[in-house]
Amino acid sequence: MSEMPKKSYGELCPPERLLLGAGPSNVDPRVLKALGAPIVEHLDPYFMEVMDETVELLRYAFKTENHITMPISGTGSAGMEAAICNLVERGDSAIVCVNGFFGGRMKEMVQRCGGTPVTVETEWGKPVTKEAVADALSESEAEVVTIVHAETSTGVLQPLKDILKVTHEYGALLIADVVTSLGGCELNVDELGVDLSYSASQKCLSCVPGLAPITASEKAMERIRNRRTPVQSWYLDLSTIEKYWIENNRVYHHTAPILLVYAMREALRLLYEEGLENRWQRHTKNAEALICGLEALGLKMHVEEPKYRCPAITSVKVPEGVHDKDIRATMQEQYNITVSGGLSDLAGKILRIGLMGVNANEQSIKLVLGALESALKKEGYPFKIGSSAAAAIESSSM
Amino acid sequence: MSEMPKKSYGELCPPERLLLGAGPSNVDPRVLKALGAPIVEHLDPYFMEVMDETVELLRYAFKTENHITMPISGTGSAGMEAAICNLVERGDSAIVCVNGFFGGRMKEMVQRCGGTPVTVETEWGKPVTKEAVADALSESEAEVVTIVHAETSTGVLQPLKDILKVTHEYGALLIADVVTSLGGCELNVDELGVDLSYSASQKCLSCVPGLAPITASEKAMERIRNRRTPVQSWYLDLSTIEKYWIENNRVYHHTAPILLVYAMREALRLLYEEGLENRWQRHTKNAEALICGLEALGLKMHVEEPKYRCPAITSVKVPEGVHDKDIRATMQEQYNITVSGGLSDLAGKILRIGLMGVNANEQSIKLVLGALESALKKEGYPFKIGSSAAAAIESSSM
Repeated sequence: MSEMPKKSYGELCPPERLLLGAGPSNVDPRVLKALGAPIVEHLDPYFMEVMDETVELLRYAFKTENHITMPISGTGSAGMEAAICNLVERGDSAIVCVNGFFGGRMKEMVQRCGGTPVTVETEWGKPVTKEAVADALSESEAEVVTIVHAETSTGVLQPLKDILKVTHEYGALLIADVVTSLGGCELNVDELGVDLSYSASQKCLSCVPGLAPITASEKAMERIRNRRTPVQSWYLDLSTIEKYWIENNRVYHHTAPILLVYAMREALRLLYEEGLENRWQRHTKNAEALICGLEALGLKMHVEEPKYRCPAITSVKVPEGVHDKDIRATMQEQYNITVSGGLSDLAGKILRIGLMGVNANEQSIKLVLGALESALKKEGYPFKIGSSAAAAIESSSM
Repeated sequence: MSEMPKKSYGELCPPERLLLGAGPSNVDPRVLKALGAPIVEHLDPYFMEVMDETVELLRYAFKTENHITMPISGTGSAGMEAAICNLVERGDSAIVCVNGFFGGRMKEMVQRCGGTPVTVETEWGKPVTKEAVADALSESEAEVVTIVHAETSTGVLQPLKDILKVTHEYGALLIADVVTSLGGCELNVDELGVDLSYSASQKCLSCVPGLAPITASEKAMERIRNRRTPVQSWYLDLSTIEKYWIENNRVYHHTAPILLVYAMREALRLLYEEGLENRWQRHTKNAEALICGLEALGLKMHVEEPKYRCPAITSVKVPEGVHDKDIRATMQEQYNITVSGGLSDLAGKILRIGLMGVNANEQSIKLVLGALESALKKEGYPFKIGSSAAAAIESSSM
């Protein structure tokens, strides 16, 4: 190793960005403080208390009394994989609703579990209809339906009530991806009767990325406990993770990412202090104000019907003649504001602006609109005379 | 939710423990500082630089030039699952060396991947022999062998050279679990020719738990790229994760746990500054001093032959008439020192004392010996007249 030239690595010095894209959102300072608290072992009595409180607070966030409610030690995609590989067994078929990028990912995961996905394809920007799901259920033996509550790739908020109704009529279980909705958009797991849902730490919870909260109903756990074969993933098997996270005997499973759990508890404590419904209202109000400002700039929303727009993430069409990459580069380089572009077929066609968690506030809106207006001007975008997003916001209901 | 009694959740206030168990180790203050640096997006140009440097530094830690060297977004067990589910395909058989708890876990993971494990069982506390592996290889069609380099459950450091020789003679690939050895025990991935190995962030790297560094040789990657079927785990598929972590095009896979990567880079920077070989020597020297002190207390090592003792973790027999749980409780409650008990068949029979990363120092040794001596006295353990661990340490070569 002595021959190796001793390259120098400097101290970490990241730019201070305002993260108004598809996630992660900025981390609340209180969460950062918790993240730096003294580490204890994963079986320390103190950590057991932290785990118990985290579980209680997660139940509050999901509005559920589900016994099995805990964070998976991985990112949102690990949560997705946990949901699918626990409920879909080799040889099973599953209805997969695909109206965006993440629905597509679920389809691939069903396949990798040895399942057969029966897709209900819907235009990227529109919600899935209950009729389409009912048709698929009537024509297949599927006992599981998967759907994305807040499609981060399109900005669509999917109504779940009717989908759940038909799913349950056919005796199937529903997996709902609530990665971008948990803690930001109305979601009542128990009242709706969602069977299994998972989220991510870094969206509306404004926690650090790396954890995937998950909650499973007793009906879902029964299916898992009665599987013909073990869950193909040892790491994501809910029936063994629960013995560490939930049961009283605390059987060692893996070393939990202790400091991330500290951070999650603090993020949830912030949510609890604000109140879940207040948090939803804050997200809704701010999304409306943002849209008001974007429309004042003459921009069009990708999700046409307002009732299907997700309060946590707004997708706006890139005007003709303007390159989204240049817009985003200007916003990031000149204003330190990160927004996201479109994925797959929507690349270059939409910008995605997220107002999640701590970032769902008036200041973020003003900053992002100002930066966007300036970036659009630089690209020669023809503003209507007198259009000013900031003025529109001022006169909105904020 | 208004009916819900508003329970109060206090500020996080963990005890300040000295973590001298099987891991996690304490986190270096510089790593904690990096963990709190401003978050940027997972596709931010700044984060790309951080990723590149982290990959370079991981190659330094593994002593490898393997192109595919990166942290998996999960704990050490996710690294284990990634290794196995990428290399073992449904219908394959794999030789699994089991001489401790984690070898057993590998066996289970092979089964969950649809593979058939052919176990080479060895007493818990002894290394696996090359003859046993050769026998297993000669009697099976297995193309993969798995082994644990540092068995955290027993304290055995497994020599890899001869095992690799026979494995390669039979044209098979070796997966080595280096969870507890990376950055603390001699390991030269390229010189040895290890095909795939994985570790964890929270052991000798003294980073935060939640990441699993992994490195795969070109031969291993070739096997992965030529699989008959896709890797059953979408989340852990190395051939797609590499497109985000390693390739120039940076294809979005999942949202990396950004702050954990910051922390990992800083932990590796500390390693790089100290020098890998210096780090190994520090761990060896301190483990020897610890053993010297333990023997002065009249205690016996679980791993009889000194050359098979892992410098990062020392397993010591619990003397007769003494209850390990009481010992550990006293050490934790009265001295804020965490040590580990035995797992499975070794429960109650051994204590495991880890000197990993920042904790591999003289002060830790003195503190743990003092606390242990006191806890043993409380249990009525009959000390030889004049035995004093501290004095033994003073007179050792430290």
